[in-house]
Formats: sequence, C-alpha cells, structure tokens
Amino acid sequence: MTELRLRAIADLPEVRPGDDLGRLLAPRVPAGEGVLVVAQKIVSKAEGRIVQLSQVEPSPKAEELAGKTEKDPRLVEVILGETVRIVRAVPGVLICETRHGLICANAGVDQSNAADDDTALLLPADPDASARRLRRALGPSRAVIVSDTFGRPWREGLVDVAIGVAGLAPLQDQRGTRDRRGRLLQVTVMAVADQLAAAAGILMQKESGRPAVWIEGVQPGGSGKLRDLLRDPARDLFR
Amino acid sequence: MTELRLRAIADLPEVRPGDDLGRLLAPRVPAGEGVLVVAQKIVSKAEGRIVQLSQVEPSPKAEELAGKTEKDPRLVEVILGETVRIVRAVPGVLICETRHGLICANAGVDQSNAADDDTALLLPADPDASARRLRRALGPSRAVIVSDTFGRPWREGLVDVAIGVAGLAPLQDQRGTRDRRGRLLQVTVMAVADQLAAAAGILMQKESGRPAVWIEGVQPGGSGKLRDLLRDPARDLFR
Repeated sequence: MTELRLRAIADLPEVRPGDDLGRLLAPRVPAGEGVLVVAQKIVSKAEGRIVQLSQVEPSPKAEELAGKTEKDPRLVEVILGETVRIVRAVPGVLICETRHGLICANAGVDQSNAADDDTALLLPADPDASARRLRRALGPSRAVIVSDTFGRPWREGLVDVAIGVAGLAPLQDQRGTRDRRGRLLQVTVMAVADQLAAAAGILMQKESGRPAVWIEGVQPGGSGKLRDLLRDPARDLFR
Repeated sequence: MTELRLRAIADLPEVRPGDDLGRLLAPRVPAGEGVLVVAQKIVSKAEGRIVQLSQVEPSPKAEELAGKTEKDPRLVEVILGETVRIVRAVPGVLICETRHGLICANAGVDQSNAADDDTALLLPADPDASARRLRRALGPSRAVIVSDTFGRPWREGLVDVAIGVAGLAPLQDQRGTRDRRGRLLQVTVMAVADQLAAAAGILMQKESGRPAVWIEGVQPGGSGKLRDLLRDPARDLFR
C-alpha cells in the first residue's frame, strides 16, 4: 500500500428520517474495494435520531447542570438521556461518556447540523450496527466507518474519529521491534479506523456538506467494533 | 476540494545524522502544490537528535522514576531532559509534557526506531523550524508537516499527529452555523494539520519504512505553528 485516493461522494440528496441510506449511497460509490466513511449526522438523520427540544421537559438535574454549563436545560436533558457518566462539566463545556462508551462533548448530541434551533440530533443507537447495515448495501469487498467530529484533551481543534465500523479491523498491529534474537519486543497498534476517519474528515469539512468519502488503497478486512477503539476504564489514566 | 491523493515517497535512502533531508526529499516529491508529511524519526535522525544510552548516567530522580515506571533508568534520564512536567507515571507508562508543550509518552523519546538497543532518538529541538527548513528545499507552493505517532486518552491505538508545520494553518475554521438572521452562532475549528498527519500515517505504517507521504488536493497556505495545536493549560480540563 503506497497510495491512497479519497473522493467525496457527490450528489447525495438531503437525507431525511426513514431514508434507506445504503440505497442512497450504493449507486454513488465507485466500483472496487475500499472503505466508505460516512458522517454520523446523515446516519442519525436517516435513523430518525432526532429530538424536538420544544417537546422536552428538563429534569431538576438537567436544570442544575444547564446552569453550571450555561447550556439550554432541554438540550442537557437530551444529553443526560445518552449519558452514563459525566466526565467534566464547566461553563460552556459538558463532556460525557455515552452509552456506547464514547467520551465526547454533549454525549454526541448535536444542534449545529440540525435543521433548526429546535432540533437536536443524537448519535446512532448502535453505530456498529449502522455501519453493518450500510456495508450490506455496498457488498462484502467494502468496509464502512461511521465517523464523528470530536475534541481532544491537550490539543486544540477537532478531528474526525470512528464511532462505528464494519468489515475492517479498527486496530492494526503495524510494527514490531525485535531484539537480536528476533524476539518481538514491542508492537505498535495503530488506530487505523480513526486515521481513516480523520483522513475522510479533510474532505468532509465545510457547511456545503459532503457527508461521505470513499477511500481506495487500503485493504478492507478483518473484523471489529467500536469497543475495540475504546480504552478499558481500568487502563485509562485520564478518566 | 473533493479529492485527495496520498503517495508514499519512494526510494528514500536510510537517513543518517548530518544528512540534508530537504535535499534527499525534494527530487522525490511530485511536481505541483501539496503537503509533505515527514515522520519525526527521519527528521530527528538527520538532525542528529540521538543519544547513546551507554553514555548516560542516570540521576537519583531518574532511578526513582524508572523504578516506578519499570523503564531503563538511562532512558528515563534522557526523557527527563526533554520534560517540563510529568503528567502520569505508572508501571509501563510515563507521560510527559515536553519542552515544546507536547503531551506524549516518554516525552517523544523513542527507542523502537533506533538502530540498536543502545540508541534513543529524541524529538527535533524545534519541529516548526525543521518543517520550515524542509519547506525551503521544496518551494513555497508546498507545505510541510512533521508528524509523530501518539497515544490518546480514552481511545485505544495510536494515531499520527502534527508536531511541526510550515506553510499551512494547522487550525482551520470549517463551518459556521448561522441563525435565521445570518448571525454566526458556532464555528467549528478543525485540526487540519492533525487530520493530514493521521491520513499520511496510514501509508507510513509498517516496519518496511515509508517515512514521508505527499498529499495532493489540499491547498497549502496560511501560516501557523505547533503551539496553535496545543491547548492553553488554562483551558485544558485534562491536565
């Protein structure tokens, strides 16, 4: 593998709740092997993961947390419904661990890409299952990554990461250092699914909206799931 | 921008201390605009950022920390020389803030890519300056990113990130959400230099050694430096 080619999927219509996203994407994906990276927002829209804030009644806990984080209490109520643990809550910032095990701002609940101010978009209920459904529409020689845009500790700016995978091992051993007797001393495990999501994110940017990117030059194969990418809490030094 | 092409730079000879890396790379980079991502290890090698562990005398502090982290005291001594603050130290793991402001394992000091067990490779003294020097050899229509492979909190597996940049704004505002009157409500700042480093990392993997990747389809331009990518400690919730 010495060359990669990434192409934004063109002419995808506006995705609406109930759309069969696989059927919309499949005819637009080039022939051959590759990996399709699909932005969470269109997956969530197709799956109807939408809440109207005007219909939400915030709980006292949501009201309190909304005060602390300076957020809309109804939005915080929706976020809490997706959250198993609050990681940090300060003015302007609410970082949560989601039911999926993801640690991200607002439990992945997004108002910015929604149709209007009243609408909040939730992460897919099971992003691996979403990826598998899309892969069934594309065929077994293709892998699918559902991606989202996350902040990170220590570094400024957002990057895209994988939140669901199908047809691809998300972690791959890339190098081994051997001692003089040929014993393996060190294995470097790369988060290939995250690197692919980040690469696709370069083309996904901008309001204009290119929510899916086709990557050729990387071999699909192996299997795995989002949980492979999530550090075991017992091994995580930054919870 | 709807297409990206990434190519590993072929036939780069083994890099040695004192090599003019720009001169080695320039004739191998395709014509035209683009971004060259260069792995830290060949930058450090060319710059002679190498320490022989057999010549290192560990301090009592290094001995103590080596006990705690189960690492070679001489290696820990070298790491401490690059470190302004120890972020976490537990068996097998030593996470440091480097003089550059990077937070990473072992202050970026790497034994795995070194020629033998006695050799430790340090990060470039000033990775932005390294990138600028390389860019001078390539010309102003090209940008340069020096990348390294880092672990992350919360997620398994390593990804490549930018540790030095030249000829490219490392952070780019990508989207603005506007209200009905057209006022900007929210700006999404993408860490484009990190996304490019991650993308290049897909081709850099494997022992075989392809330490530089040429990316076409992304417009170089703007300016910036590593510090732009590093979160102000006052704004960082995970120190």
